[in-house]
Amino acid sequence: MKEEQLKADGADSRTPKMVVSNGVDRFLADGVHYRDLITIGEQLTDWASWPVVWSRFADQAEARGDVQLVEGHSLSAGDEFFRAALYRHYAQYLYFDDVAVKEQISIRKHQSFEKAAPLLDRPVETVFFPYKDYKFKAYLRLPRGVDKAPVAILIGGLDTTKVDYRNVSDMLLARGVATFAFDGPGQGETAFFLRLTPHFEETVSAAIDYLEKRPEIDAQRIGIVGRSLGGYFAPKAAAVDDRLKALVAWAGMWRLEPMASYDEANRRGLMFLGDSHTVEEADEFYRFMDLEGHAQKIKCPTLVMHGGLDQAMPVRNAHQLADAVSGPVTRMIWDDSGHCNHDRSHYARPAIADFIARNL
Amino acid sequence: MKEEQLKADGADSRTPKMVVSNGVDRFLADGVHYRDLITIGEQLTDWASWPVVWSRFADQAEARGDVQLVEGHSLSAGDEFFRAALYRHYAQYLYFDDVAVKEQISIRKHQSFEKAAPLLDRPVETVFFPYKDYKFKAYLRLPRGVDKAPVAILIGGLDTTKVDYRNVSDMLLARGVATFAFDGPGQGETAFFLRLTPHFEETVSAAIDYLEKRPEIDAQRIGIVGRSLGGYFAPKAAAVDDRLKALVAWAGMWRLEPMASYDEANRRGLMFLGDSHTVEEADEFYRFMDLEGHAQKIKCPTLVMHGGLDQAMPVRNAHQLADAVSGPVTRMIWDDSGHCNHDRSHYARPAIADFIARNL
Repeated sequence: MKEEQLKADGADSRTPKMVVSNGVDRFLADGVHYRDLITIGEQLTDWASWPVVWSRFADQAEARGDVQLVEGHSLSAGDEFFRAALYRHYAQYLYFDDVAVKEQISIRKHQSFEKAAPLLDRPVETVFFPYKDYKFKAYLRLPRGVDKAPVAILIGGLDTTKVDYRNVSDMLLARGVATFAFDGPGQGETAFFLRLTPHFEETVSAAIDYLEKRPEIDAQRIGIVGRSLGGYFAPKAAAVDDRLKALVAWAGMWRLEPMASYDEANRRGLMFLGDSHTVEEADEFYRFMDLEGHAQKIKCPTLVMHGGLDQAMPVRNAHQLADAVSGPVTRMIWDDSGHCNHDRSHYARPAIADFIARNL
Repeated sequence: MKEEQLKADGADSRTPKMVVSNGVDRFLADGVHYRDLITIGEQLTDWASWPVVWSRFADQAEARGDVQLVEGHSLSAGDEFFRAALYRHYAQYLYFDDVAVKEQISIRKHQSFEKAAPLLDRPVETVFFPYKDYKFKAYLRLPRGVDKAPVAILIGGLDTTKVDYRNVSDMLLARGVATFAFDGPGQGETAFFLRLTPHFEETVSAAIDYLEKRPEIDAQRIGIVGRSLGGYFAPKAAAVDDRLKALVAWAGMWRLEPMASYDEANRRGLMFLGDSHTVEEADEFYRFMDLEGHAQKIKCPTLVMHGGLDQAMPVRNAHQLADAVSGPVTRMIWDDSGHCNHDRSHYARPAIADFIARNL
């Protein structure tokens, strides 16, 4: 009865421990260490503890990294700073109780990542590109020993960002592909100055304009990967900008459902992303999120990767997208897999990198 | 009562599901994918199912690798073949019910690994070196862009082997250190032609003789890492062969306990290793396993890494070893950590690589 009432009030009926145990595949796939995750799960009590506990583990990683750096162990230091950034990412992930707290943690997340940046193999260059009156930050990494490298633009989803793309970036780099990850409108640190607009794809074109000016990049070989809700943003970008020569919809999105069909966390996330203050406002705002009439314009090789058990984005979205594109399409759809295939990250993520490398 | 009786009969009172759930930190640290591990745990019924279920997952990985290879995705193929080798390793890990089955799986384990060998970054060269009338196989990997590389000899323990050393090897290579892993007497595939002798360290010296002839290796900079029971073998080698310039006892071993103090699985493992047919025979055989009088001769920089909660090798072993060596010693001993610190593999393993790289 209590829980029913909470739900009716619109409060979040998930407990933080549930979020950890339901999300274990995803946390591990993104690079959280298993024992840390279990201990974090044990220490979580209520939602107020969520940012505190994750930040504590981030602080520990960062402190270890500081020691490693002094001792000259730059690779270990880089990994610890990255881990700190990842844990800070999760400290504010889908946390909307207090947007000021979210932003504070987000700032530290990027500070940690940018401490890691020069130490990672391959290093990360923090760059900026203009979009309208805004300056978008991006993380550029170049592969070893490639003169003019192909590049994959990496697009996150609902509260997945340029930071947590690290291991997919590593896989692309190992295959000779540069990576360029940025937070679009409503995402990551961009969300604090620009929420989602119906024309996210314009920021991708702005990113391509920037990449065309980089001498290390082969501007004829630019691809894009969109994760989760990015499985809408990336196809939309490929539909309107034919400079994109390969597309991966890592979870393909055709059309957003009405807000009522999402669980509390995702609904709040979508409303934050779109800066909507009521469910009705959000339903109205998100009408644009529909690939009908756009997907048909996609001519580049496309990989649609999806799980039949995806609850956030039902698998019909993937099939609609794959059916509609005009270019050659590869479907990797596993009936027994969940959202973004974290349950088989050991071969799903490399397959994304292989697809991009092969098609650029 | 039933269980009591089983124990009294010397049968194995552990269930395979227990082995998976108690060992999750270790399996993950060595590279088993979490969702595979959980599913393997679900599919295990009795001990007869142990090699069958692990082999099934190995076969799946290998089949994926075969497809990747045909499609030209050599890095993904290499990772799948390695995964197949690792799962086959576990398929026969501490499995002594039928040594013929163990050997059969071991053969396939090495076939899988050697399919991976040329595809990994860095590739693995399979080499042989002589010891007495035997030919020992070793896996040599050279770091990128180093002219004459320092090298770490990697020694396993009780049923840990040259194959499951892969990610420590990766970390060393990333730090400019070559790796040379082999199965000593009683270990891995060597066990099928030579069981443990009181002079394991002679095989390390034979390995060094071989390495001295390799032009890519700087023979003045050879170190050694011993994992688990290798925390006895490696110090013993460093005590008798001063060509070893750095030592890591990844779990330090001072003296083996009487057989009665080990659980069934480890006791059976030790008896297999030493080819002992009774507990009394094993107790007699293992008298040699004592660093008293040897550890004092170790002059090279030594890292002793251990967990205060180690049940297989009580932490006093680590302190005895660290207290006894004559060279500079670094202790990394965490009170709240278990055997080989798999519960903090994300910083323990890199610390091993950093120590070797810094001291060679």
